[in-house]
Amino acid sequence: MKKPFEHLSDLLAEDMSAVNMLIKQRMASEHAPRIPEVTAHLVEAGGKRLRPLLTLASARMCDYDGPFHIHLAATVEFIHTATLLHDDVVDESNMRRGRKTANLLWDNKSSVLVGDYLFSRSFQLMVETGSLRVLDILANASATIAEGEVLQLTAAQDTNTTEEIYFQVIRGKTAALFAAATEVGGVIASASEAQITALNTYGDALGVSFQIVDDLLDYGGSSQSLGKNTGDDFRERKLTLPVIKAIAKANSEERSFWDRVIVKGDQNDGDLERAMELLQVHGTLDETRDAAIYWGNKAKSALETLPKSEIRNLLGDLADFVVNRAV
Amino acid sequence: MKKPFEHLSDLLAEDMSAVNMLIKQRMASEHAPRIPEVTAHLVEAGGKRLRPLLTLASARMCDYDGPFHIHLAATVEFIHTATLLHDDVVDESNMRRGRKTANLLWDNKSSVLVGDYLFSRSFQLMVETGSLRVLDILANASATIAEGEVLQLTAAQDTNTTEEIYFQVIRGKTAALFAAATEVGGVIASASEAQITALNTYGDALGVSFQIVDDLLDYGGSSQSLGKNTGDDFRERKLTLPVIKAIAKANSEERSFWDRVIVKGDQNDGDLERAMELLQVHGTLDETRDAAIYWGNKAKSALETLPKSEIRNLLGDLADFVVNRAV
Repeated sequence: MKKPFEHLSDLLAEDMSAVNMLIKQRMASEHAPRIPEVTAHLVEAGGKRLRPLLTLASARMCDYDGPFHIHLAATVEFIHTATLLHDDVVDESNMRRGRKTANLLWDNKSSVLVGDYLFSRSFQLMVETGSLRVLDILANASATIAEGEVLQLTAAQDTNTTEEIYFQVIRGKTAALFAAATEVGGVIASASEAQITALNTYGDALGVSFQIVDDLLDYGGSSQSLGKNTGDDFRERKLTLPVIKAIAKANSEERSFWDRVIVKGDQNDGDLERAMELLQVHGTLDETRDAAIYWGNKAKSALETLPKSEIRNLLGDLADFVVNRAV
Repeated sequence: MKKPFEHLSDLLAEDMSAVNMLIKQRMASEHAPRIPEVTAHLVEAGGKRLRPLLTLASARMCDYDGPFHIHLAATVEFIHTATLLHDDVVDESNMRRGRKTANLLWDNKSSVLVGDYLFSRSFQLMVETGSLRVLDILANASATIAEGEVLQLTAAQDTNTTEEIYFQVIRGKTAALFAAATEVGGVIASASEAQITALNTYGDALGVSFQIVDDLLDYGGSSQSLGKNTGDDFRERKLTLPVIKAIAKANSEERSFWDRVIVKGDQNDGDLERAMELLQVHGTLDETRDAAIYWGNKAKSALETLPKSEIRNLLGDLADFVVNRAV
């Protein structure tokens, strides 16, 4: 069965193909062939192109018929790709989208500098729209993204991390760009203020639920079905919502366990199983799933302010789909 | 004796202090204290603040009396600081402005992410000016900077590097931000098109001569007076103008020498001395000095289109000062 973003992709196929052409054209560099090599490796690995799709859908839903939703969709994909390149350097990752990462195939230097280049290219694309409001939204989103990344770095391995910090981190990591992607679609279409606010709320809530579900799936979801990537966050000592909630409820023996495995990083056989048992005992996987459902519903409610249309229905389905991965 | 940029600094002291306040205010982060720590380390090490000074001088020379030259001056300093943070990661540097680098004191991760944050902050600052033309200039400069950095990376250790590639690299490394810094000063002041073009030409030519002189001084200048940093580029196998010119004139024995020390990186005692002898024999240090003089004169000529004023005189002196370091 087709997934909601595949339906959206079909419905907006012509726009998406214009976006892909623009991306290809703008990732070129007359003088430095290393740039398109590195970019193509990542862009052509074929992510879902979820963010540009959100921009196109938002603009079209608000009856936009100009050319600049294409620029903005390419802009958000470039920003996303730039952050992936830098993330992989920071996380020392070796695999992304089933392929070796650029920092592994080339080097960290290329990933840092090509990321900078893509960020500059995204900036040129958005200037072409001539909308200061769009520029303002994307400048603020960029700052939130970068701040969230630094916050994640300093919060890592710190068992005092609160839910408040967690939400700031995932806003930066995921929700800020989702919210900007949908909001600029409405702005470029000259939608009403109420609709623009609704688009921001939709993107933000979708991004938050998306990231919560990702973090939940890393512990096997609320059904605790173990997949091949289960436990990555645990091994990397990342403080995500299920663990933050479990630490808040920990007795002193459990607290020592978390300090040993997360703060000291002293992990042995059986520790992941012990961690998952604690999440189960304290019911924090279910609580995390409930949080994802809450944000998914918030995203769906925001859509009510927007014009009834096939696109709106599909965006609603998308919010359900994101949450349903976790249940 | 006071140097021209010190005179400029005195003349524009009030503006500069507003810039410093704005920088301090905007490098803060509510949530991630790591950001101002890293930034302060670099910002307070006290570079010459040459780029923001150029923006202030350009705007004031064109009779600007609004508030936004302060924003733009802080913008160019943030862009500059962001590129320094990323450069030090890419070059694996340990020292900058006489202090340990951020990548050494914290880690590469912090340098990459705090650089991204400063770049986003610069972007917010320029959006606040409300000038799409300013945004266009700075977006293009950012792309040229990033492209030049990648080009430098791929051209390193390649003895086929031409003078054309060298000039593209130094435009990205230095001249693009100098040119943008002066040009946006004129744009924000609503100067005439001829004056804006002249400001761009001045900044570009000043930046080019500045970088040529830097590269020349790395081989002791045309007088070959050896300082403590002499030969850094040679040891790092960087292809700069004196060497590119010498390789173009090399006989086959000399060509083997350059291939061994630059391409293979097989350097022994006496090789730096041998390299400097070759630069002397082929007269490429003098030719490089002449190139710096040419670009310095070009910068000074551009000033003729601009309003006569004390600032204009000091900008002329600055061009002389930059070149005179080399003779």
